[in-house]
Amino acid sequence: MASSKRVGKLVVVGVGLIGGSFALALRAAGAVGEVVGIGRTRSNLDDARQRGMVDRACTLDSDWLEELREADFVLFATPVAQLPDLFAACARCIGPTTVLSDAGSTKQDVIAAARSRLGSTLPQFVPAHPIAGTEHTGAKAAFATLFRERNVVLTPTAETDREAVRQVRELWELTGATVRELDPAQHDRVFAAVSHLPHVLAFALVDELARRPDAQAFFAYAASGFRDFTRIAASSPEMWRDIALANREALLAELATFRSELDAIARLIEAGDGAALHAIFSRGSAARRAWGESRRSDVPDDGPREP
Amino acid sequence: MASSKRVGKLVVVGVGLIGGSFALALRAAGAVGEVVGIGRTRSNLDDARQRGMVDRACTLDSDWLEELREADFVLFATPVAQLPDLFAACARCIGPTTVLSDAGSTKQDVIAAARSRLGSTLPQFVPAHPIAGTEHTGAKAAFATLFRERNVVLTPTAETDREAVRQVRELWELTGATVRELDPAQHDRVFAAVSHLPHVLAFALVDELARRPDAQAFFAYAASGFRDFTRIAASSPEMWRDIALANREALLAELATFRSELDAIARLIEAGDGAALHAIFSRGSAARRAWGESRRSDVPDDGPREP
Repeated sequence: MASSKRVGKLVVVGVGLIGGSFALALRAAGAVGEVVGIGRTRSNLDDARQRGMVDRACTLDSDWLEELREADFVLFATPVAQLPDLFAACARCIGPTTVLSDAGSTKQDVIAAARSRLGSTLPQFVPAHPIAGTEHTGAKAAFATLFRERNVVLTPTAETDREAVRQVRELWELTGATVRELDPAQHDRVFAAVSHLPHVLAFALVDELARRPDAQAFFAYAASGFRDFTRIAASSPEMWRDIALANREALLAELATFRSELDAIARLIEAGDGAALHAIFSRGSAARRAWGESRRSDVPDDGPREP
Repeated sequence: MASSKRVGKLVVVGVGLIGGSFALALRAAGAVGEVVGIGRTRSNLDDARQRGMVDRACTLDSDWLEELREADFVLFATPVAQLPDLFAACARCIGPTTVLSDAGSTKQDVIAAARSRLGSTLPQFVPAHPIAGTEHTGAKAAFATLFRERNVVLTPTAETDREAVRQVRELWELTGATVRELDPAQHDRVFAAVSHLPHVLAFALVDELARRPDAQAFFAYAASGFRDFTRIAASSPEMWRDIALANREALLAELATFRSELDAIARLIEAGDGAALHAIFSRGSAARRAWGESRRSDVPDDGPREP
């Protein structure tokens, strides 16, 4: 990172809500020189250029790899299933001082892909997960303050260069985020419980209702408890298919635990055990209220995101 | 209803968010003469009087039944489990022209209680369920516009006097609500699916997390997808225990259906069947987006409520 800016040349692969907002935030902080966007579709890249988040843009079917040679920092902000191929394509084009990072919602699978594809540049890759998003997607949805007061979780491994970790932390802090570190397996367990499982439950509930022959008779009476509970079911099916498969083991463990809890509740309802139901609902209600009070109420959501 | 007002004397049993808002809305419409509030706690009734929603108030341990003799309309807006005892206490004090209604979230159990306790006044009772609420409770949380553009579902039976139904419909329409009629069993099936099941799932998720020894390590990373999904878990444990038991049969059927859906999803994740997962998530996402677009976005929520 030799320019007068912290990042002389930034390459963002996947200029969606996350990648685009990262570029805008670093621009707003005066921390980047040139920004190059790489993506699947020309129309989204045109949006990104018109909104000033990138100076130049290439689609993945052009010779975009040339752009990596002089890059100081490369952020991969695509759905996680695309990372193995992207890593494999990049490996030979990465210079010795380029720092790489990602924005994937799962970390053990991304690290496994990096280990098998990045070759000698593996230490330059810092696995990361910004916990931010909205229900909107694409460059049009990006904004410079998306990461303010959000968590960004870094999950470096024993191979990761600590100086690269320091640089990635510094860049995310410039976007206004709070940066934390977690062990990759712990990261995947935590997010299986607090994010991936709720998404699966919301998808499952709406899908099951929608498949009923008389679905409209149900949807007609759904109100705002339903609205909030199912908001995340409007998320990107592609992104969540990838996450469910990428974090299979932890998600299956959460599903099994939740299934046991539901079985227990069904037995209590069947037995008419009001005291035990009240105990469960009270503990849930108290924990939810305590959690709500522990955080600010003006936080945007962490819904779907994709490039 | 002989006064110059549509309702000369209104008695609200349970002056909480729902009962208090009903009184305020009818007052705002100039449709009531005198309003009497009945409740469990003096402090809540004092709030109701200070906020002008009731003219007089009695606690349930006073001789409140005297207030029923001259009443034109009595609204029971307490948790459903209290209705059988209230009906039994009231039956002998209800005059022949008084119209009775309730605001319970379940209807078959309320109707069964009415049948066994209301005696000859049963035809004067119109079972009703206003689909409105916020996450706040008590008279302090009440406001006159709570029911605007909300649904109120009436579930009259063969015994119900149609003139009483007409009057209840008219009063709810004066609050700004849209009034619909459903068969009681159909009502309970619909709300088991779109309201009671989501509440049980949200309570179950938060309770299960809260019981973990390392719960804080999970809650620390929960973000706004979790926030919206679990908002209804902050609801009143008492109210939801009552609903779960009152609507036991329909809720158990929904739980069984949902658990089958979850089992199917778990098998697909285990098998790595991305295409089938994508199909489920796509159907859920499309249905949720279509539902969201079919309704206004400025609706308040239908969260917990209790007197």
